[in-house]
Amino acid sequence: MAASTIFSDCSSSATARLLPFRKIRSSALFFRHSSISLHPTAPSHRKSSSAIVPLAMTTETSAKVIDGKLVSKQIRDEITSEISRMKDAIGVVPGLAVILVGARKDSQTYVRNKKKACEAVGITSYEVHLPEDCTEEEVLKSILGFNKDPSVHGILVQLPLPRHMNEENILNAVCIEKDVDGFHPLNVGRLAMRGREPLFVPCTPKGCIELLHRCGVDIKGKRAVVIGRSNIVGMPAALLLQRQNATVTIVHSYTNNPEEITRQADIVISAAGVANMVRGDWIKPGAVVIDVGINPVDDSESPRGYRLVGDVCYEEACKVASAITPVPGGVGPMTIAMLLSNTLHSAKTLHNFK
Amino acid sequence: MAASTIFSDCSSSATARLLPFRKIRSSALFFRHSSISLHPTAPSHRKSSSAIVPLAMTTETSAKVIDGKLVSKQIRDEITSEISRMKDAIGVVPGLAVILVGARKDSQTYVRNKKKACEAVGITSYEVHLPEDCTEEEVLKSILGFNKDPSVHGILVQLPLPRHMNEENILNAVCIEKDVDGFHPLNVGRLAMRGREPLFVPCTPKGCIELLHRCGVDIKGKRAVVIGRSNIVGMPAALLLQRQNATVTIVHSYTNNPEEITRQADIVISAAGVANMVRGDWIKPGAVVIDVGINPVDDSESPRGYRLVGDVCYEEACKVASAITPVPGGVGPMTIAMLLSNTLHSAKTLHNFK
Repeated sequence: MAASTIFSDCSSSATARLLPFRKIRSSALFFRHSSISLHPTAPSHRKSSSAIVPLAMTTETSAKVIDGKLVSKQIRDEITSEISRMKDAIGVVPGLAVILVGARKDSQTYVRNKKKACEAVGITSYEVHLPEDCTEEEVLKSILGFNKDPSVHGILVQLPLPRHMNEENILNAVCIEKDVDGFHPLNVGRLAMRGREPLFVPCTPKGCIELLHRCGVDIKGKRAVVIGRSNIVGMPAALLLQRQNATVTIVHSYTNNPEEITRQADIVISAAGVANMVRGDWIKPGAVVIDVGINPVDDSESPRGYRLVGDVCYEEACKVASAITPVPGGVGPMTIAMLLSNTLHSAKTLHNFK
Repeated sequence: MAASTIFSDCSSSATARLLPFRKIRSSALFFRHSSISLHPTAPSHRKSSSAIVPLAMTTETSAKVIDGKLVSKQIRDEITSEISRMKDAIGVVPGLAVILVGARKDSQTYVRNKKKACEAVGITSYEVHLPEDCTEEEVLKSILGFNKDPSVHGILVQLPLPRHMNEENILNAVCIEKDVDGFHPLNVGRLAMRGREPLFVPCTPKGCIELLHRCGVDIKGKRAVVIGRSNIVGMPAALLLQRQNATVTIVHSYTNNPEEITRQADIVISAAGVANMVRGDWIKPGAVVIDVGINPVDDSESPRGYRLVGDVCYEEACKVASAITPVPGGVGPMTIAMLLSNTLHSAKTLHNFK
């Protein structure tokens, strides 16, 4: 939480200056016009009380807000109708198995949300819940059972696993035909290689690209910067952008001048996991910003004592970017939509249904 | 050949200007000082006969020349001694199997060179030579035979294969424990993923990084540009640089301003396959340039009617770079050295010898 504390507001440095006002563009289908809703109190960690007017006081912004909720709703509707068509035609209902180990609250919430989302579109969900102190062999046994089960088309191991388990061994045990998370190295290798096709693409980066596509953002030939290089988001997002013929740079913790490099990008995907790290002056005017970060920051006004913010200082960036995803309501809803999409795709492939 | 004709000399544009003379640095072990040996005649495809003095007339340059022949010789000596140590200790001699399909002259030359290099270090080489019109099944049968053969530790299918064959199917048949070319998607996936280790890294990009290491070039935190994104060189080179904590951008045919992006790089690896494409003014002063290109250009002075040049306009770049690989004699000799290294590594791993 140290990092999110440091970066918990956007008004603490020289970057918090008023950026040139940009013309409001005509709104497209999946955009809503941004009107920043503000917390009335000043952020608690502001480093100086200088005369700089917090940007947050401006309520009208120029960027289109990319509405992930709306896009994901449309995708879920498409999936519902495809599942119904498949069921009518060949009597197959897609099935997703989720393996949860231990009692982490956040993991339980994620799994519950995935189950709900499955039900809503007509995917049957299967769940195995193992105790924190179970053995790796028990987890592997569950996976092998689902690998063989013809009613299961996708298998998902909720991460993180307890420390005494080897994540690599466990993820590798998921048969590649049911690897709807797309984390198997064979899928990653195919994603990296020209002329090869992965069976599944990891859900969050796939959701980012899908947002760009559905919002009419052209990727080919564009400069793209991905901030963060995790196996789950950053690295596969970079590979996907490259497959779409963007010129991609990955910025990471060893990058010397991340702001300068990010400022060259027409498309920024940030998956650093650091609240408000990407300031307004990191963004090239007119760039499209996809913010994958979901970072808790202290907020005494909230009943929970915290609120969620992205990697990008939204109040600043929305004045510079041409389009931006909010947090929450941007990339978040897309991840589950892509999981459902991958599960449907798997069922179709395994049953040779087109 | 169209491209190499277009770019067959470096003196045809505004980039052919004299660049500031840079101080000659003290020479290190693997550097030799460059003294460009010139063809006495002007290149045949020069577009203008303007008053610009061809850079080629300057014989002293500032860049250290990275001597791939010398480095590869040292590596081959190390391999020879390791093989001898293993043979003495456990009686195992590494074996490399090469499968050649068809009668391409260049492929035959490559295979012959690999066999010679194997013999020189003490690796036993096995060869299967199949006719151009053989079936995919015959190639697969050979591979499966070598997969089972305990005296074979590395299997290499010489590319390109005849058109009627599915390269993906054939390469995937090589068991991953003997995939000394590192082309299996499982190896590529592991190369892309943090916390995973590929069993083998493709030889040419591995050779590039090895050159950087042995010449004392620090990679961590540096800006790196890889030109070209082939499965064999560009993409794995970028992944390797990233694993070493460089900030990497891949430049490719859809990149809008390759020269501007390349000019930001501290390390340039060019694997575009276009003769003399990278001009002097693409290079940041002091950058390190690794030229993977081996491109034939017409040369009536040569007994063969052509000569080999890199992707980088050497005469210009060596005035700007701090270090540069020549063509030939740079990356070329490293590729075979890395193949021998991978084969030794495989034999050690399969026999659990350290």
